[in-house]
Amino acid sequence: MKVAVSRKEHFNAAHRLFNPAWSDEKNFQVFDKCSYPNYHGHNYELIVTVTGEPDPDTGYVMDMKVLSGIIKKHVLDIFDHKNLNLDTAYFKNTNPTAENIALVIWRILRPHIESQLELKIKLYETERNFVEYPAH
Amino acid sequence: MKVAVSRKEHFNAAHRLFNPAWSDEKNFQVFDKCSYPNYHGHNYELIVTVTGEPDPDTGYVMDMKVLSGIIKKHVLDIFDHKNLNLDTAYFKNTNPTAENIALVIWRILRPHIESQLELKIKLYETERNFVEYPAH
Amino acid sequence: MKVAVSRKEHFNAAHRLFNPAWSDEKNFQVFDKCSYPNYHGHNYELIVTVTGEPDPDTGYVMDMKVLSGIIKKHVLDIFDHKNLNLDTAYFKNTNPTAENIALVIWRILRPHIESQLELKIKLYETERNFVEYPAH
Amino acid sequence: MKVAVSRKEHFNAAHRLFNPAWSDEKNFQVFDKCSYPNYHGHNYELIVTVTGEPDPDTGYVMDMKVLSGIIKKHVLDIFDHKNLNLDTAYFKNTNPTAENIALVIWRILRPHIESQLELKIKLYETERNFVEYPAH
Amino acid sequence: MKVAVSRKEHFNAAHRLFNPAWSDEKNFQVFDKCSYPNYHGHNYELIVTVTGEPDPDTGYVMDMKVLSGIIKKHVLDIFDHKNLNLDTAYFKNTNPTAENIALVIWRILRPHIESQLELKIKLYETERNFVEYPAH
Amino acid sequence: MKVAVSRKEHFNAAHRLFNPAWSDEKNFQVFDKCSYPNYHGHNYELIVTVTGEPDPDTGYVMDMKVLSGIIKKHVLDIFDHKNLNLDTAYFKNTNPTAENIALVIWRILRPHIESQLELKIKLYETERNFVEYPAH
Repeated sequence: MKVAVSRKEHFNAAHRLFNPAWSDEKNFQVFDKCSYPNYHGHNYELIVTVTGEPDPDTGYVMDMKVLSGIIKKHVLDIFDHKNLNLDTAYFKNTNPTAENIALVIWRILRPHIESQLELKIKLYETERNFVEYPAH
Repeated sequence: MKVAVSRKEHFNAAHRLFNPAWSDEKNFQVFDKCSYPNYHGHNYELIVTVTGEPDPDTGYVMDMKVLSGIIKKHVLDIFDHKNLNLDTAYFKNTNPTAENIALVIWRILRPHIESQLELKIKLYETERNFVEYPAH
Repeated sequence: MKVAVSRKEHFNAAHRLFNPAWSDEKNFQVFDKCSYPNYHGHNYELIVTVTGEPDPDTGYVMDMKVLSGIIKKHVLDIFDHKNLNLDTAYFKNTNPTAENIALVIWRILRPHIESQLELKIKLYETERNFVEYPAH
Repeated sequence: MKVAVSRKEHFNAAHRLFNPAWSDEKNFQVFDKCSYPNYHGHNYELIVTVTGEPDPDTGYVMDMKVLSGIIKKHVLDIFDHKNLNLDTAYFKNTNPTAENIALVIWRILRPHIESQLELKIKLYETERNFVEYPAH
Repeated sequence: MKVAVSRKEHFNAAHRLFNPAWSDEKNFQVFDKCSYPNYHGHNYELIVTVTGEPDPDTGYVMDMKVLSGIIKKHVLDIFDHKNLNLDTAYFKNTNPTAENIALVIWRILRPHIESQLELKIKLYETERNFVEYPAH
Repeated sequence: MKVAVSRKEHFNAAHRLFNPAWSDEKNFQVFDKCSYPNYHGHNYELIVTVTGEPDPDTGYVMDMKVLSGIIKKHVLDIFDHKNLNLDTAYFKNTNPTAENIALVIWRILRPHIESQLELKIKLYETERNFVEYPAH
C-alpha cells in the first residue's frame, strides 16, 4: 500500500558547462553556448518524491512541511541565487549538467530522509529539459 | 505493447486534518494550520491512469469519454463542492490527507475499470504537493 | 515611463456563497452547489500589481520582497487555511465571491502601498474562473 | 546510476478517428465528434525520455540538442502542420488515436537512439488527455 | 467599482490559412506551412472577459455558470471538433487567423451579454501565439 | 477594430543586482541575495505584444513568424546564455532588474516594428515575479 508523495521547490542559479580537461574550442564544440565563459542561469524547478506506507495515525507518508524544511536547509540554502560552479563545493570536479545536479541533490538528501522511504529527484532546468534520478 | 492513458479532472472541496484520538493541542502540533477547526479547501487536480493494450479496432486502451463519465459519476459527484470530513462517508474515521484521498479514489474506481487494466491515481492538493498510488 | 510589476502569491481557504436575506431554496437556485452548507474550498492564486516609475538608484518600481511581505502580513496571514465566511471579519455581510474577495484585498492593501503607485488585484478562484479589480 | 532525461517538443496537426471497416453510423457511435468527416486538430505536446548512465566526460546521458534535432528531423518535419490521416504514411491503416501516435513515434525514433538507452514517449493530445508508451 | 470576470474554455479545431484571391505559391509564400492544403489544427484556449459592477445581492458581475453556458451554446457547439474553413459559416470569405477568430467570437457573443457589460476575447492558438480583442 | 497579438519567447541568462555607487554592504542590504558577487540566473519568459488593425488580405496584425525572427535576431541572440552584466552593452550603467530589462528590450525592438503598431513587453523573471512596459 505504498504511496509516493512529492514536494515541488525551486531555486535560481548561474552555471556553465565546462570540462577542464578539454580546450575552450572542444568545450564550445560539445557544450555550445552552455559553455560561454561568463555563465548563464536558470530557474530550476525541483520535485522531491518520497515513497512509503502512510502512517495510520497521521495519514502521512511524510509531513510535507518537514520535507520542505529539509530541502530548504540542505539544498536551497546552498544553491539558491548562487553560481553552481564557483560558490558550491559540489561542482569543482563535476560538470553541473541537470543530470549531475540531480545526482548531487539525491546524495545530499538521502541521509536526511528515513531509510525505509524511497527517494527520487526530478529537476527541470527549463520547461523543455528535465531529468529524473533514479530513472525507475 | 501496453500503453498508459490518462484523464485529468478536478474538484473543489473543503477539509481539515484531524485525528479524533488526539487533543486539539496535539492535532495543531502535528497538522499545524491544516487542523484549523472551520476547514480550509483546495482545487484538487485528479489524474486517473489506466494501462493496457490498445484495442485493434478502436486504437483505444479505454475510451477517455467513458473514463471521464465514470470519474464524474463515482468521484466528482461525491466530492465536488463538498466538505470531505462532513459530507462524505469516506473520511469519518480516516484523515483526509492527500495520501488517503488518493487511496479512497483508487478503491472507489477499481470495480468500475475492466480488471485487465491497471489503475493509478495522481492527486494534486496544491501545485506544490501531490501524491500517487500505487507508487510504482 | 511607468512600469507595472507583479507578485504572485497563493492561499487555500474554504467558503460558501450565501445571501442571508434569501431562503435556502433561493440560495441554491442562484448559487447552486457553491451554496452547499458545509463549505467547499479553493487554492486561490493572487497576483498583486503595482505601477509606477522605477527608482533610478535601484531600478525597482517596488522591491518584490517588500511587496511579498506586505501581502503575507495583511492578506495571507488572515485568509490562508481559513474559512472565509466564519474566520474573517470581511465576509460577515459580504458574499465571498471572487469579485468581493478581490475588492476586499484591494482595500486591505491600498493603505500599505505608497500612494503614488497604482494597485491592481487579479484573483484566480480556479484555473478557469478569475477576476481583476480595478478592471482598467 | 541511471538517469532519465526528457525533451519536450510540440506539433500542430489535424486528424479524425475513423475505422474504415465500419459504417459512418458506427464510427460516430464509437468516436463521437472525433469522427467528424472534415477533421479537427490539436496542439500535440510530445515528451521524449531517454534513460541511461551519464557520460563521465560530459555529464550528459544524451545531448538534448542532439535529441531535439533527431525529433525535429524524424517526427516534427513529418507531422507538424499536417493532416495525420491524409498527409502521412503511418495512419493509412491505423487509427490516429493518441495511443497509436505514441506507438508510431516510438517506432520512428527507436533506430535513431543508441541501443543501450531506453526510450519512452509521452504525448499530450489535450491538457486533459495524454498517453505514455511503454507504460512502465 | 468595475470588476472584470473571466471564464476560460477550449475547443479543438482544424483550419488552414488561405487567401482565395492569391495563387497557391503566393499563399505558401505568405502563410508558409499554415497554408498546407489538407489542414492542421489547434487546441484553442478561449478566455471571455466581461466587465461591470458586481450585483449587490449576489456579489457577481455575471454568473460564470451562465457565461459558460452561453459560450458553450454559441461558440463551442459551432467550433469544437470542426474544420473552421469547411464546417462553419464564418470563414468562407474570412481567413481563420487567430485575429479573425477572436473578432468572430466577439461578434457572436456580444448580443448574448447584457449591454452594460463590456466584453473582451483572448484566444490562444498555441501557448506561444495569442490575440486579444478589443486591444484596450 | 484593433487587435493585440502576442508572441512568447524565452532566454536563459545570468545577472546580479548591484549599484556601483554603493558599498557592498549597502548593495546586500538593498538587493539581498540578488547581489551575490558570482551571479545567479533565470529562465526569462518574454511576451512581445503588437497592437493594430488586421490586414484585410492576410488577417494578420503582424506575421508571428516575422515577429519571432525580429525578437530572435535583436534580443535572444544578444541575451540568451549570456551574463547580462558582463556580456551585454546595456547594463554597464543600468541595474539589470526585470523593470530595466523590459525597458531595454522595448527600446531595442521599437525601431524594428512598424510605427503604426503599438508595442508592449511583458517579462517573467520567475513564475512569481513579472513586469510590463508600458504599464497601460
